[in-house]
Amino acid sequence: MAEEVRDLREQLIAKVQKIREAKIPILVLVEGWAAAGKGSLIKELISELDPRFFNVVSPAITPETEARYPFLYPYATAIPENGKIVFLDSGWMENCVRKILSHEITRPEYRRRVRQVNEFERQLRDAGYLVLKLFLDIDRKEQRERLTQLLEDPNTEWRVTEDDLWQQREYKRFQEGYQQFMQETEAAAPWHTLDGDKRKAAVSAALQLLVETMDHALQTGKYNGEPFAEEFPLRKMPKLAEVDLSPTIEDEEYRKELKKLQSRLSELHNIIYRKKIPVVICYEGWDAAGKGGNIRRVAYPLDPRGFDVMPIASPEPHELARQYLWRFWTRLPRSGHITIFDRTWYGRVMVERLEGFCTEKDWQRAYNEINEFERQLTDWGAVVLKFWIHIDQDTQLARFTDRQNTPEKQWKITEEDWRNREKWPQYEVAVDEMLQKTSTENAPWHIIESNDKKYARIRALKIIVKALEKACEEQIGREMEG
Amino acid sequence: MAEEVRDLREQLIAKVQKIREAKIPILVLVEGWAAAGKGSLIKELISELDPRFFNVVSPAITPETEARYPFLYPYATAIPENGKIVFLDSGWMENCVRKILSHEITRPEYRRRVRQVNEFERQLRDAGYLVLKLFLDIDRKEQRERLTQLLEDPNTEWRVTEDDLWQQREYKRFQEGYQQFMQETEAAAPWHTLDGDKRKAAVSAALQLLVETMDHALQTGKYNGEPFAEEFPLRKMPKLAEVDLSPTIEDEEYRKELKKLQSRLSELHNIIYRKKIPVVICYEGWDAAGKGGNIRRVAYPLDPRGFDVMPIASPEPHELARQYLWRFWTRLPRSGHITIFDRTWYGRVMVERLEGFCTEKDWQRAYNEINEFERQLTDWGAVVLKFWIHIDQDTQLARFTDRQNTPEKQWKITEEDWRNREKWPQYEVAVDEMLQKTSTENAPWHIIESNDKKYARIRALKIIVKALEKACEEQIGREMEG
Repeated sequence: MAEEVRDLREQLIAKVQKIREAKIPILVLVEGWAAAGKGSLIKELISELDPRFFNVVSPAITPETEARYPFLYPYATAIPENGKIVFLDSGWMENCVRKILSHEITRPEYRRRVRQVNEFERQLRDAGYLVLKLFLDIDRKEQRERLTQLLEDPNTEWRVTEDDLWQQREYKRFQEGYQQFMQETEAAAPWHTLDGDKRKAAVSAALQLLVETMDHALQTGKYNGEPFAEEFPLRKMPKLAEVDLSPTIEDEEYRKELKKLQSRLSELHNIIYRKKIPVVICYEGWDAAGKGGNIRRVAYPLDPRGFDVMPIASPEPHELARQYLWRFWTRLPRSGHITIFDRTWYGRVMVERLEGFCTEKDWQRAYNEINEFERQLTDWGAVVLKFWIHIDQDTQLARFTDRQNTPEKQWKITEEDWRNREKWPQYEVAVDEMLQKTSTENAPWHIIESNDKKYARIRALKIIVKALEKACEEQIGREMEG
Repeated sequence: MAEEVRDLREQLIAKVQKIREAKIPILVLVEGWAAAGKGSLIKELISELDPRFFNVVSPAITPETEARYPFLYPYATAIPENGKIVFLDSGWMENCVRKILSHEITRPEYRRRVRQVNEFERQLRDAGYLVLKLFLDIDRKEQRERLTQLLEDPNTEWRVTEDDLWQQREYKRFQEGYQQFMQETEAAAPWHTLDGDKRKAAVSAALQLLVETMDHALQTGKYNGEPFAEEFPLRKMPKLAEVDLSPTIEDEEYRKELKKLQSRLSELHNIIYRKKIPVVICYEGWDAAGKGGNIRRVAYPLDPRGFDVMPIASPEPHELARQYLWRFWTRLPRSGHITIFDRTWYGRVMVERLEGFCTEKDWQRAYNEINEFERQLTDWGAVVLKFWIHIDQDTQLARFTDRQNTPEKQWKITEEDWRNREKWPQYEVAVDEMLQKTSTENAPWHIIESNDKKYARIRALKIIVKALEKACEEQIGREMEG
């Protein structure tokens, strides 16, 4: 046995280098019973690996993270870079099964979480991640003996929690819970159960699995998932060319409306903050459409301690090295806060599509992946608003020319803007497709007519105020029921 | 007044663009009495700024952050990128004055914090940051009226904390505390007191200050501080050329010692974790000196949930855009955890110095800045260990050649390694200077003779075990006193 393990370790070390060269990221989830030896197993797996190529993460299931971020947040923010391995010491299984058994979450919430887990695992797989899921199994008697042993030693006593003892008492229910969860989450990445009663055999089996999984990936090459379309309830969107851009607003009405809406938004922000409702506002639109000014009018009445504007530029190396939604997961607001994205994850199906920064499969798949991501946000309770700030080509030309000719505006216009302008027709095709495919009922698009910037600001503010009022009312309604 | 504010706002908007072009980062600290209107002031300052160029940060003085990170952590991790502005809504003043008045910290700890604040502000200034510090002042009567008004409105009642009411009762003591703190922290960045009783005048004064400060920086150019040397108690270090590299260890003794030390380290990690002692272990050394293998022997016995290895590569754009220590502040361990840095902040005085990635003033200043940084870590209670893994040129050549000729090791050797080898003499000068200037009593260097890698591993492990034993004993001693 010892020799077999030594041999597997050597194979693993060699494979890790190949994986690094092939830029394949690996996520190893280690779940299992309390006292099953998850920590020790991970220790054995990493024991001779070069520490530059892996990380061990214990997803911080702190009350703060749980209460204030989406369910998948601790996992989605912990995924490895290309060519590296992350070992998760417990993760989404424990966070679903324990919570449903303790009635901390409802049955419908459990169902949603299972669905989110399947979405998450599939998205990682389709982006070329290896997801290896291990369940370390021990029987009830073995667990009792190990817990007793830990409790009897004053040096290890503290490791046994009330929750662990509760699990021992409720062993049968947990067993059913784990089994059901594993059956429900086999679609994208299969589960592997290891016999934790036999520690050495478990290590050997885990090493074997890891080596085989890597080997398979090295032979078949980095996976790139096929596009697919789930049936999301979609709103019918007009083509951009059909949008009437003539609406305008009179100066006096603008000032009156602006003041009224900003004052209401300020009140609502206060309620949002106290009711801990998360808000995500997305701005996309043509260059010079007036995104910046529009955002400023929305931000003005907000308490600066409760919102952030996230300007999205080209991804940096550490961002490019991970699944493309990672850099947005890490920028989400805490509940009760507002994040305004100045450009968003929709870059995937616009600039990245048109400039060839990703493969066709990548951006084709992204429509559905984005719909899932946004549903994960609205499941969490977030208000998700998406604006396409729209102008016509003549208006853009006029504004570009004005920027060029006005010294204090020249920084706003670059060669790239002119180059992008030449690709207007291709962008229009991409934007039309995006609007058709991602205007879901839970996170619909709003086309904001912005030939008149003032009109556009009032339009956006009205939509935001209405959505926040609805969210506050619903939250208050839930509190009164509960 | 309204017109003056409008005019200042316009000037500010124009300056922000110049500041962006000049890549000057700005940190605006807004401190002041409870109910003085800090939030409203910030809101007025940002009201017409483009949200892409600033952020408002309320340093999360959560019990978790306070208890588990160094005092400066919430501020040092929140500094702006070049060309951007960060507004801090309360910061280090409140965190010093309130804490000493409430006896949450001792007088010596207060003294240390004041010193750290001065170091922090000077380091930012010397790196070209504008640090603008505002204190929003209201008198006792005004504060009482405002608090009463807030309490009487059910919509704002929640904003008044017990701490605020306590401040109102203890107004005089706070007043003295604030004044003393301001006197003690004038060295690198002066304080500006604004009269919070007159809200509009305060906004106008703050805008004026901001515009003037920016203007001054734009005229004089981005500041680059002069090198200086504080008297740190230093250990005498030998020159590298004087180090005897002949020590070796027999295989049998190596195995015996390794086992014994790793087993002890494992026990100590357990105590470290429970006693919440932070540990920072730094590895520097020649290419092919055996850093990786050394780190692996240290990491092996550690609980993977309680340590991280941080490989330090070239900085990414968002890291280059901030003071150079920022990317290390953001990688510090929580207390009770161990972080092993595989290369460190000493890159500043080695590769960045030799390759011209920073100015001469920058790396000359860095010796002292690094000594201060490490003292901030040991003040926090961290164990800081620094290893120079040392070999001679012949040994390096033999190892390079071996790597070149062994297929499974070829990934470890690059053209750059050969180029660096040619610069051995220049590096030796830089390393000697670094060892002379930064081997402080609180964070000394250890030169690890690594011509025999096994000898080097045992040496490093012994030093780590001894240091952790000492830290655990001291901590237990403190607990028994307390």
